[in-house]
Amino acid sequence: MHVMEEVSQRLGRFVADQRDVAASTGPIARQLFDAAAMTLTGGKRLRAQFCHTGWVAAGGEPYAEEAIAVASSLEIFQAAALVHDDLIDHSDTRRGRPAAHRALEIAHRDAGWSGSSEDFGVSGAILLGDLLVAWSDDLLEEAVAGHLHAPLVRAEYGRMRRDVTLGQFLDVAQESAWVTQPEAEHADRALEIASLKSARYSVEQPLIIGAALAGATEDQRSSLREFGHHIGIAFQLRDDVLGVFGDTAETGKPAGDDIREGKRTILVAYTRERLSPDAKDRFDEALGDRDLSTDEVHHIQQEMQTSGALDRVESIIEENATAALGVLATAPLQEGAREDLARLAEAAIHRRA
Amino acid sequence: MHVMEEVSQRLGRFVADQRDVAASTGPIARQLFDAAAMTLTGGKRLRAQFCHTGWVAAGGEPYAEEAIAVASSLEIFQAAALVHDDLIDHSDTRRGRPAAHRALEIAHRDAGWSGSSEDFGVSGAILLGDLLVAWSDDLLEEAVAGHLHAPLVRAEYGRMRRDVTLGQFLDVAQESAWVTQPEAEHADRALEIASLKSARYSVEQPLIIGAALAGATEDQRSSLREFGHHIGIAFQLRDDVLGVFGDTAETGKPAGDDIREGKRTILVAYTRERLSPDAKDRFDEALGDRDLSTDEVHHIQQEMQTSGALDRVESIIEENATAALGVLATAPLQEGAREDLARLAEAAIHRRA
Repeated sequence: MHVMEEVSQRLGRFVADQRDVAASTGPIARQLFDAAAMTLTGGKRLRAQFCHTGWVAAGGEPYAEEAIAVASSLEIFQAAALVHDDLIDHSDTRRGRPAAHRALEIAHRDAGWSGSSEDFGVSGAILLGDLLVAWSDDLLEEAVAGHLHAPLVRAEYGRMRRDVTLGQFLDVAQESAWVTQPEAEHADRALEIASLKSARYSVEQPLIIGAALAGATEDQRSSLREFGHHIGIAFQLRDDVLGVFGDTAETGKPAGDDIREGKRTILVAYTRERLSPDAKDRFDEALGDRDLSTDEVHHIQQEMQTSGALDRVESIIEENATAALGVLATAPLQEGAREDLARLAEAAIHRRA
Repeated sequence: MHVMEEVSQRLGRFVADQRDVAASTGPIARQLFDAAAMTLTGGKRLRAQFCHTGWVAAGGEPYAEEAIAVASSLEIFQAAALVHDDLIDHSDTRRGRPAAHRALEIAHRDAGWSGSSEDFGVSGAILLGDLLVAWSDDLLEEAVAGHLHAPLVRAEYGRMRRDVTLGQFLDVAQESAWVTQPEAEHADRALEIASLKSARYSVEQPLIIGAALAGATEDQRSSLREFGHHIGIAFQLRDDVLGVFGDTAETGKPAGDDIREGKRTILVAYTRERLSPDAKDRFDEALGDRDLSTDEVHHIQQEMQTSGALDRVESIIEENATAALGVLATAPLQEGAREDLARLAEAAIHRRA
């Protein structure tokens, strides 16, 4: 699949154009553009691939310019989301490199500027995320302006943006709101958040946006929605598992990152269901403690395994994978695209980073 | 002028629609929507008024639905900018009320949630700003979808968003980058930033967006641009003066806010040009010190006056006001609109808050 290369080239052209437009604004602006360009390199380009495959699945010509541009605009939006995300999660690394706020902090220090480098990193990253959101819209417009299906594409794009932002907010709030909720609800809340902030955002909407651009039929859209929902849920649960059990060398993030961050995933909800009151108190103590030792992290990983929570999550992942492939088998989609979708689903669910 | 009321009602309807769509997502989402609604109340609605007047000036029918909706979308974008701005500037109050990050911090505490209320306030405000940006686009699309002049409106809107974000970044960077720049450039840098982050954003683009929606002629657009640029510069310089000399009771912000924040305005550049090396060092020491006493703030205010910097800025404001009215006198615009523009210009330049 050459979509990744096509998208990277399109993003490179887009950033170059933006640099030209702002060329007059001097060296400081260049710092912002360098940071922006950095956030647009690397990554799995998963959303772009789902978008392009949705386009092809609905009869679009592979690698068509408008499809690559729309797919690329999704990657710019994702870069924006990650910049703000890393601020919110206090994540200092992204893909093994400094997160945007750290990169800007370093740039401030290297430039010999006055004042707090850390403050500048945070402020700069808030604005960098805002700039990337604006850019994602600009590229989307470049791609769809005057296009027959532009209205539906814009509508689905807007829905994606609202859903992921609300989902992110619920996710952040849940890290502290869980104490006020009946324990029986925790797993459902975690699934609801996974659906909004990830299933819809990362898989379902990219597929639908690509398909909408190609003028997909109602049947095609609804089967892509169903397929995308199952894959998206499995994708997020895999993310939850990797956030706790992932290998640093492959994820580029510290092991047990989600534990120190205190994310209230379904893995956490299932584990707590099986713990004694005392063990549960200690578990809650540890969760969200940024200074947790490696041993303490390891202990929590063990509790998640011995409680059977990990197995339960793995089986939900498999159930969703099976359901998605079931939908695919009878979906009224282009032949080749169906295989691509199965391949992408596999990559999203059984990845190790 | 009833534009403010029309816009407030349109914003109220928009938020209500958003609540309905997300009604299923429960009490935590409500917290986000309440915070969003709060950011959309009050304010001078200056951008909406310039937008609507630009629309009328180019022949649009006063209070037409699409013009009010586009004007309202600019106010949602402004609300987003202020939410992120207050985070960046560490401003705890906005229009005499808690800034969004403080309001969310308070909500977290009142709800009895676990963890750091302050962290939640910051994270929540980053996401609230992102949601408002998405909303502003959504309302813009509602307004212009299928409209003859939608492409130009979208293009000018995108330009506004890029300019203000770059301008904000330059503004934040300048607070610490000035030490590495030749002193002779400081005033020009301050003007460049004022032009990007404020003249274009607050006045010129709102006027042009409204005018574009009405299918303005090339002549109408260029005279509105020229008028808007002069008023916009004067508007920002007035803002700089109020940020130092403003009356808390009227601005709703602590006196000397910009001094404690360390903003490198043209007022600062002009003052430093007249200070002795020692006085300048003490001046730079004090600027950006958040713990500055009222007396120390008062001392800096005096230096800005005795150095003649304040008078210089006031005369630049007047020069721009005169130039703007000169443009207006011969501009090919609707009669009534010309008077409205003069009235708006006056309100923007000689305001006290």
